[in-house]
Amino acid sequence: MPEVIFEINRDLSVPMAHQAVPGHNRWHPDIPPANTVRPGATYRIECKDWTDDQVRNSDDAEDIRTMNLDPCHVLSGPFAIEGLEPGDLLVVDIVGIGPFEEQPWGYTGIFAKENGGGFLTDYSPGASKAIWDLDGIWTTSRHVPGVRFIGNSHPGLFGCAPSPDLLAEWNRREQALIDLNPDRVTGDIPALQGDVQGTPQVPALALPPLPKDALLGTLSGSAFDEAAAVACRTIPPREHGGNVDIKDLGVGSRVYMPVFVPGGLFSIGDLHFAQGDGEITFCGAIEMPGFIDLHFDVIKGGMERYKTDMPFFKPGRVGPNYSEFLTFEGISVEDGRNYYMNATVAYRRACLNAINYLMPAMDWTFEQAYLFLGAAPIDGRIGGVVDIPNSAVSLSIPLSIFDRSLLPEGAGGGRELVAD
Amino acid sequence: MPEVIFEINRDLSVPMAHQAVPGHNRWHPDIPPANTVRPGATYRIECKDWTDDQVRNSDDAEDIRTMNLDPCHVLSGPFAIEGLEPGDLLVVDIVGIGPFEEQPWGYTGIFAKENGGGFLTDYSPGASKAIWDLDGIWTTSRHVPGVRFIGNSHPGLFGCAPSPDLLAEWNRREQALIDLNPDRVTGDIPALQGDVQGTPQVPALALPPLPKDALLGTLSGSAFDEAAAVACRTIPPREHGGNVDIKDLGVGSRVYMPVFVPGGLFSIGDLHFAQGDGEITFCGAIEMPGFIDLHFDVIKGGMERYKTDMPFFKPGRVGPNYSEFLTFEGISVEDGRNYYMNATVAYRRACLNAINYLMPAMDWTFEQAYLFLGAAPIDGRIGGVVDIPNSAVSLSIPLSIFDRSLLPEGAGGGRELVAD
Amino acid sequence: MPEVIFEINRDLSVPMAHQAVPGHNRWHPDIPPANTVRPGATYRIECKDWTDDQVRNSDDAEDIRTMNLDPCHVLSGPFAIEGLEPGDLLVVDIVGIGPFEEQPWGYTGIFAKENGGGFLTDYSPGASKAIWDLDGIWTTSRHVPGVRFIGNSHPGLFGCAPSPDLLAEWNRREQALIDLNPDRVTGDIPALQGDVQGTPQVPALALPPLPKDALLGTLSGSAFDEAAAVACRTIPPREHGGNVDIKDLGVGSRVYMPVFVPGGLFSIGDLHFAQGDGEITFCGAIEMPGFIDLHFDVIKGGMERYKTDMPFFKPGRVGPNYSEFLTFEGISVEDGRNYYMNATVAYRRACLNAINYLMPAMDWTFEQAYLFLGAAPIDGRIGGVVDIPNSAVSLSIPLSIFDRSLLPEGAGGGRELVAD
Amino acid sequence: MPEVIFEINRDLSVPMAHQAVPGHNRWHPDIPPANTVRPGATYRIECKDWTDDQVRNSDDAEDIRTMNLDPCHVLSGPFAIEGLEPGDLLVVDIVGIGPFEEQPWGYTGIFAKENGGGFLTDYSPGASKAIWDLDGIWTTSRHVPGVRFIGNSHPGLFGCAPSPDLLAEWNRREQALIDLNPDRVTGDIPALQGDVQGTPQVPALALPPLPKDALLGTLSGSAFDEAAAVACRTIPPREHGGNVDIKDLGVGSRVYMPVFVPGGLFSIGDLHFAQGDGEITFCGAIEMPGFIDLHFDVIKGGMERYKTDMPFFKPGRVGPNYSEFLTFEGISVEDGRNYYMNATVAYRRACLNAINYLMPAMDWTFEQAYLFLGAAPIDGRIGGVVDIPNSAVSLSIPLSIFDRSLLPEGAGGGRELVAD
Ligand SMILES: [Zn+2]
Ligand SMILES: [Zn+2]
Ligand SMILES: [Zn+2]
Ligand SMILES: [Zn+2]
Ligand SMILES: [Zn+2]
Ligand SMILES: [Zn+2]
Ligand SMILES: [Zn+2]
Ligand SMILES: [Zn+2]
Repeated sequence: MPEVIFEINRDLSVPMAHQAVPGHNRWHPDIPPANTVRPGATYRIECKDWTDDQVRNSDDAEDIRTMNLDPCHVLSGPFAIEGLEPGDLLVVDIVGIGPFEEQPWGYTGIFAKENGGGFLTDYSPGASKAIWDLDGIWTTSRHVPGVRFIGNSHPGLFGCAPSPDLLAEWNRREQALIDLNPDRVTGDIPALQGDVQGTPQVPALALPPLPKDALLGTLSGSAFDEAAAVACRTIPPREHGGNVDIKDLGVGSRVYMPVFVPGGLFSIGDLHFAQGDGEITFCGAIEMPGFIDLHFDVIKGGMERYKTDMPFFKPGRVGPNYSEFLTFEGISVEDGRNYYMNATVAYRRACLNAINYLMPAMDWTFEQAYLFLGAAPIDGRIGGVVDIPNSAVSLSIPLSIFDRSLLPEGAGGGRELVAD
Repeated sequence: MPEVIFEINRDLSVPMAHQAVPGHNRWHPDIPPANTVRPGATYRIECKDWTDDQVRNSDDAEDIRTMNLDPCHVLSGPFAIEGLEPGDLLVVDIVGIGPFEEQPWGYTGIFAKENGGGFLTDYSPGASKAIWDLDGIWTTSRHVPGVRFIGNSHPGLFGCAPSPDLLAEWNRREQALIDLNPDRVTGDIPALQGDVQGTPQVPALALPPLPKDALLGTLSGSAFDEAAAVACRTIPPREHGGNVDIKDLGVGSRVYMPVFVPGGLFSIGDLHFAQGDGEITFCGAIEMPGFIDLHFDVIKGGMERYKTDMPFFKPGRVGPNYSEFLTFEGISVEDGRNYYMNATVAYRRACLNAINYLMPAMDWTFEQAYLFLGAAPIDGRIGGVVDIPNSAVSLSIPLSIFDRSLLPEGAGGGRELVAD
Repeated sequence: MPEVIFEINRDLSVPMAHQAVPGHNRWHPDIPPANTVRPGATYRIECKDWTDDQVRNSDDAEDIRTMNLDPCHVLSGPFAIEGLEPGDLLVVDIVGIGPFEEQPWGYTGIFAKENGGGFLTDYSPGASKAIWDLDGIWTTSRHVPGVRFIGNSHPGLFGCAPSPDLLAEWNRREQALIDLNPDRVTGDIPALQGDVQGTPQVPALALPPLPKDALLGTLSGSAFDEAAAVACRTIPPREHGGNVDIKDLGVGSRVYMPVFVPGGLFSIGDLHFAQGDGEITFCGAIEMPGFIDLHFDVIKGGMERYKTDMPFFKPGRVGPNYSEFLTFEGISVEDGRNYYMNATVAYRRACLNAINYLMPAMDWTFEQAYLFLGAAPIDGRIGGVVDIPNSAVSLSIPLSIFDRSLLPEGAGGGRELVAD
Repeated sequence: MPEVIFEINRDLSVPMAHQAVPGHNRWHPDIPPANTVRPGATYRIECKDWTDDQVRNSDDAEDIRTMNLDPCHVLSGPFAIEGLEPGDLLVVDIVGIGPFEEQPWGYTGIFAKENGGGFLTDYSPGASKAIWDLDGIWTTSRHVPGVRFIGNSHPGLFGCAPSPDLLAEWNRREQALIDLNPDRVTGDIPALQGDVQGTPQVPALALPPLPKDALLGTLSGSAFDEAAAVACRTIPPREHGGNVDIKDLGVGSRVYMPVFVPGGLFSIGDLHFAQGDGEITFCGAIEMPGFIDLHFDVIKGGMERYKTDMPFFKPGRVGPNYSEFLTFEGISVEDGRNYYMNATVAYRRACLNAINYLMPAMDWTFEQAYLFLGAAPIDGRIGGVVDIPNSAVSLSIPLSIFDRSLLPEGAGGGRELVAD
């Protein structure tokens, strides 16, 4: 086992703030390093689930409905890498990842609309939840019967700390967005109120800094107050990576990350046992506490050398190999309205088309199919982004994870390759 | 060789209107069948390239710059399928596809901004072109040196005719979109003028019916005039499929398609030797004239039975198998502005990040990298669509199609799996 | 279409000897080139089926039972490659391959024991045959119902001419083998008569030169007689490649081949639509006449540089991608007898174990299952070759080519990933 | 973590005989169950390495040279499965596998010829060893520089106990083999002394029962003596599975196994971090102590229902996905002699051809290349087994596990798909 550089109390109810060395739930360059690492070595980092243990292994979704988003996501770190300087690339190999033995289960939640909702909140405004039992590489759920699949476990969220300037830029542009409609967060605004170039509205354009429930490692006193006032929330992906939620970044993947501050100050969390592209349920993938083993290395001056100010990746090669899929398509037309070149709307339609197909085929409710799409290894692929006015996006589901055949039957149907 | 049900004169300069049986370039239910087929059998359909032979095998892009889009796309068909009725699903297997021996090359074009542009028109407003030589399963281009890849050839555009009601609905909602800004098509409108919910503006919100250069098979006289006045353009994907441009629909794929009129009236065209997800150059993939062999079958009452009013697919299993990729990410932030949950902007940023990396690595111009992304087998994947305010989209490039290593070098670099 | 350098009359009953330029059916360095090619270019070569059209599209196996093996295999070539010299490596890319439109079917035959038999001749001593209809990338057979699969078409036999010395060496060592038991070819020798280190005996230890029915291109007169007396038969694989029957050498593959005579004198034939590892039926894969497109190139002095006197390969990447297999195992124990480290016996046992499973599962006869294993994309893999006294070999069958589930049912059975 | 049903002292020097519950190193139906399991549940079984800790993490091969084979393989078990009876099929899912944290390394050894040797012992008669460091999913070796690869860890040896009759049959037929040449084990017999149908001789035709160093679980006294006199050695694969050494049986695999005695009496051991097909070094793969998590289930009466008396498998889908290989071929000709249809000789030649290529390319000794082929994920595939007189077998090496390009260079060389 690699050296553990961030430890989580196995009484998982102990909050992140009370760990031996606390982590953090905001981005700010002043958060002191939780530990220091050497390039060229592998370390183990333990992580809490992103909500800091707000979700129970139960059959109701009350915990999801009343979730407090303010302390999310709790992250492990930051870690200073010896010799790392702004302009370098931090190279991180994902060497291992897994749940804690103490909690062999994860969860997928759909937030209620009043709590921010998910991707399909206008179609399913209530809170829902599925508990997934983890059995080695597989998972099943008593709440989503009829599927069993292999998790390509991965971290949903990681990145280096922003520089003060980059942090200020994030706050500037996100506030500019909020200012367009500051009331969105509180009102119950109908979908489709968005104008034609945009997506249907849902609550909250963006989340500003929030000192309430902020955790900034060991920072305290006035240093804490100053930082908490401007530290960015962890919800969106940004230039440093952040909440990228890319399901292909499983074991064997290599990540090249831009460095903005001395030492890099790398943090990680939001571990997923498995996820569908888009993590459409918002809360989210199959979320779990657990460990991740990372190997660190450095490319000096790599940002300039490789012309990058965003992370890039070499995905691993041990994710489950599937060869048969059923693929649904969506176009950017919703409720009789064309959304101009809007891949987000097109993906929502693809999700809805898949759900309509899955509900009778699997005898599922809308919510079960929705939870499934957030948790299972489904692929969302850009189809068209130039054929005015409609974007097209496809969604592919591996066929062998179901306990029955999902292919249409009858003339032209039957098993895959036998056309009769 | 299967029975040929639509023949193209191998003097490829003969326009679609002058073929033995002409095809069409608009969608309308009154276009008479070009031929009739039986379910359970395989047929060959020959196709012109989508522009009806407007592009030459030359080293300048004058033909792209002066392209007349009005006759595009020229399609082969429609074909009536015996016994097919509204509410059925038409099952189409893609059995074979290839270029004509007379034209062993294809093209990728980037439209000039004044001609509608492509996905990155604000970054490359001029016209560009690459000619791709087709050598069996491979292609190379003298205009994009250093890459050689295998084409998973596929049809970009296919679908059944809309019913009169569906056609009317298409016209209604697209006109509503045009009416939001009817001047867009003619003006030289700067990018980024779009408001925060939308994408940066580019010319043309949508294209209304256009009798000029319309071709409706054998329809003529007043019947032609009536139909041409309302027949829909072929540019966007719609409920029947249409210009879906899904690069995975190569040989071995099965398509399940909704049927809206008696006989189905299936048409096809826009053959691609290869394509990148999104076909970001607009004109487009590696476009080619050629043949496609299709097997037809029917699921009676399949639309209700499988709860669908959109095509769905089972992709084939013979596309090239790659196992190493370099993956770039984009988020919906452009020019200092957050675009709320906009996957289209995120994909554009991913494309630009890839281009920035490729230009020095391959010694390419911006346009060469742009043409490459439109033509080569690159994957565009939905990352995040719920992490307000930023969508994330990733773009993956197979590493083995290049004549050199694309991976970063140096500490932490080197060959894939050797971390040194 | 590439330039055709070897043409076959499309009246396929015209024998190889009467083609415009005849091919050959023996190996000898004096056979004059049928044509000359340039390195760096792609050419089309047309081929007859290996038996020179002795097999009919019929429902009985009389043609297989009475097959004349003496003119087999008929090959196209030889081709001289400009500048190629002994010690070079000839680099051949397989660019395309397919059946002739005139014969959209192929065949798999099992020879009767008196005619040499196949791998399981002691278990199925009669002649059998299956006709496979070719439908684009797929094939089905009225003689082997319930399967439909994709062919990774490939050449079974290719190689450069041996030098006179190498030819003499082949004759010497093969005669030495024949001399061990020269009566084997005529007698009806029971299986298992072989001693413990060897395989069960079947007729014929090796085939010596045979002037009868020999075809040596345009060679005639005394030159023909001299060459025919020593020219080697084409049945076995040898140092130049020859009848390698490697099913992975489909389109996209590259072959590096040793060169023994000036110009190389490359020949090819024995095209297969599809094949199982081992081609256990002997006659054999799905045999077909057709065309193959090859790109030629040269590595000067490559044999010494890469320390090779045998061909080596880089297989292509467009063969069908399967992800679910059922795998049978065999060990080198037969009829109560241990065969010391004998992978050949182990593979035969794996084949028999698979046949025992397939017969009831698919409602097939022994012969149908046997024909299936010779023709379908099954993998034969070396398991153990050191665990005295038993070799182990495995045989894997892709599950999705069947019209039903082949997995065991019941507790522990059911669909792949759902355990109970 | 699943319930542990067999525990290994983490002082790994404690021999198997002194574990809390000892395992065994011979096959006999009277060995008492070490534990009992329920169908439908998952359990953890801990295993010693197959030699019971005879190998050290050192740079010399003295431990390999002086290895005592008599106590090998030490196995964990046997386990009785509730309700299992002769004629049933035991269904085992491989849910997880890994090394102990206490020993993050494994070894590959080549036995000296006087100690039995390996597959290439006539070419490398001394003892050799490589230590492999295990770093998550990867391994590297200071003794075989320049490669890094992912292990598809798997058990080399597992099976149910034989019935008394089956055990007697094994002894009968193996003794018959030994009787053919009882002196082979002691003499230094030159290779190639075998006759033409067989393989070159190496020491030992088979290993008879050996009471010395026998371990039969808790059996003792006269019961031990009686059983030890006839209990079979564990070296060969047999009808129950046994030492199958199939490298594809990694996590996610399902095994269907015949049951010969009440309760089944399943045992397992010989864990491999990774292995090449054939495990040609004999000692062997990358051998390691560690844990394996198994899920048990039962198909009542499955042997008759599925017509099987041998294990069969459904391999998992998470092994590393490679798409580029270099493939070497071997034919059954050695030292100027044809070995009639001998796939074992053909595989040896393929191994030697690969080694000849690898030595200069990687700057390796013969032994380094030999150790590599035993340990790395190389595929051995049956080519031809009917083309008299020569078998052909191929050996494929994934190209991306090396720190340099292995493809030939020069004209026709260069990177994979770029021909010139
Ligand atoms: Zn996340
Ligand atoms: Zn998450
Ligand atoms: Zn298109
Ligand atoms: Zn197109
Ligand atoms: Zn052959
Ligand atoms: Zn053949
Ligand atoms: Zn073993
Ligand atoms: Zn072993």
